[in-house]
Amino acid sequence: MSVEAAGAAPPRGNPATRREHILDAAEACFTRNGFHRTTMQDLAREAAMSPGNFYRYFESKEALVLGLVERERERGTRLVAEMEVSGDRRGALLEIIARYFVSISREAATLRVEIWSESTRNAAIAAMTARTEAETRDWFTATFAALSSAPDFDPAALYAVLGPLMRGIVVGRAALPDYDVAAAVAQLHALLEAGLDGRLPRAGAAGPPAGP
Amino acid sequence: MSVEAAGAAPPRGNPATRREHILDAAEACFTRNGFHRTTMQDLAREAAMSPGNFYRYFESKEALVLGLVERERERGTRLVAEMEVSGDRRGALLEIIARYFVSISREAATLRVEIWSESTRNAAIAAMTARTEAETRDWFTATFAALSSAPDFDPAALYAVLGPLMRGIVVGRAALPDYDVAAAVAQLHALLEAGLDGRLPRAGAAGPPAGP
Repeated sequence: MSVEAAGAAPPRGNPATRREHILDAAEACFTRNGFHRTTMQDLAREAAMSPGNFYRYFESKEALVLGLVERERERGTRLVAEMEVSGDRRGALLEIIARYFVSISREAATLRVEIWSESTRNAAIAAMTARTEAETRDWFTATFAALSSAPDFDPAALYAVLGPLMRGIVVGRAALPDYDVAAAVAQLHALLEAGLDGRLPRAGAAGPPAGP
Repeated sequence: MSVEAAGAAPPRGNPATRREHILDAAEACFTRNGFHRTTMQDLAREAAMSPGNFYRYFESKEALVLGLVERERERGTRLVAEMEVSGDRRGALLEIIARYFVSISREAATLRVEIWSESTRNAAIAAMTARTEAETRDWFTATFAALSSAPDFDPAALYAVLGPLMRGIVVGRAALPDYDVAAAVAQLHALLEAGLDGRLPRAGAAGPPAGP
């Protein structure tokens, strides 16, 4: 694809701006063609940079995926910081979740699924996926614990429901063109509120079914 | 990879057996190397067949993915038929779900994530994913409706929670080595039982949070 067709403009400004520009180009490339079919040459072309200059910023495709995940994490951190200054912390958590899932582009969701797929084959990406998941789980369980005053509240059990539910919403956004994200987020909100209030059914109440 | 290394034996028996053999080989190949990096030559080699003979069974990689999804659907149909003859239909549904998720291999989960990823780029696979999702949704909502006697029961609302949750469990199985599938399935069971009994919190009870 030519630079003109990709719509990329040559990068300008300071190194941080260039880095952002390169990550935008990589996100577009990986989403359009997948991780495997994309070469470092494709990425440099999409960013309208010479390969030599491009390699000064990122030395491999893995480094670019790590950079994209790091950028996503920083966005999350900013959202969390906004929540921390809010008086209504539970309301802020619901709003952050809604904002994240309703605003996630199909491209961003696709890239996330692509990274999950690739982490089954690539040790560096697998390690990053495991670390991201552990951080996400720790943050949510700590936040749930801080926001709930229900007796016997089990934040890990709530995350065992909401973690896969959130992953499944991302898959739906990526793979199902007519997927109703807003409806799914509304259900997620209802479960989260019920969970924090200790009203969510817990595993153990119903054991595995006996045979007929 | 050589035929010996792949552990494949030349196919024998009738066309149906050969077809199964080819699908097994394709599942192994796609899981190991991904959809894009796998060629028809790789697939023929993995199945220990000549390319010419191989093409008589499947004419493209897309046809093989369709064949794999069709086989998964047939397995589901057999499980459902077992459920239909069971006296305890609700218990049978819980058991089918547990059996499906607890027994799903990491390879099968990986292939499923690979297909979701690929459906964002390949129109034929996207159409198949959309059809499979519509069938799955229709079957679950009809089954939920038949199994619930709760007043004002909304099977679509229950599937809006359980559908993404089930997809998220598959992603966890594929991408997270230490993922506790049994714990996730126990939570899924608890939500399903509560949903069928009309005890699951529904969206609408809590609107979007107001700003701080």
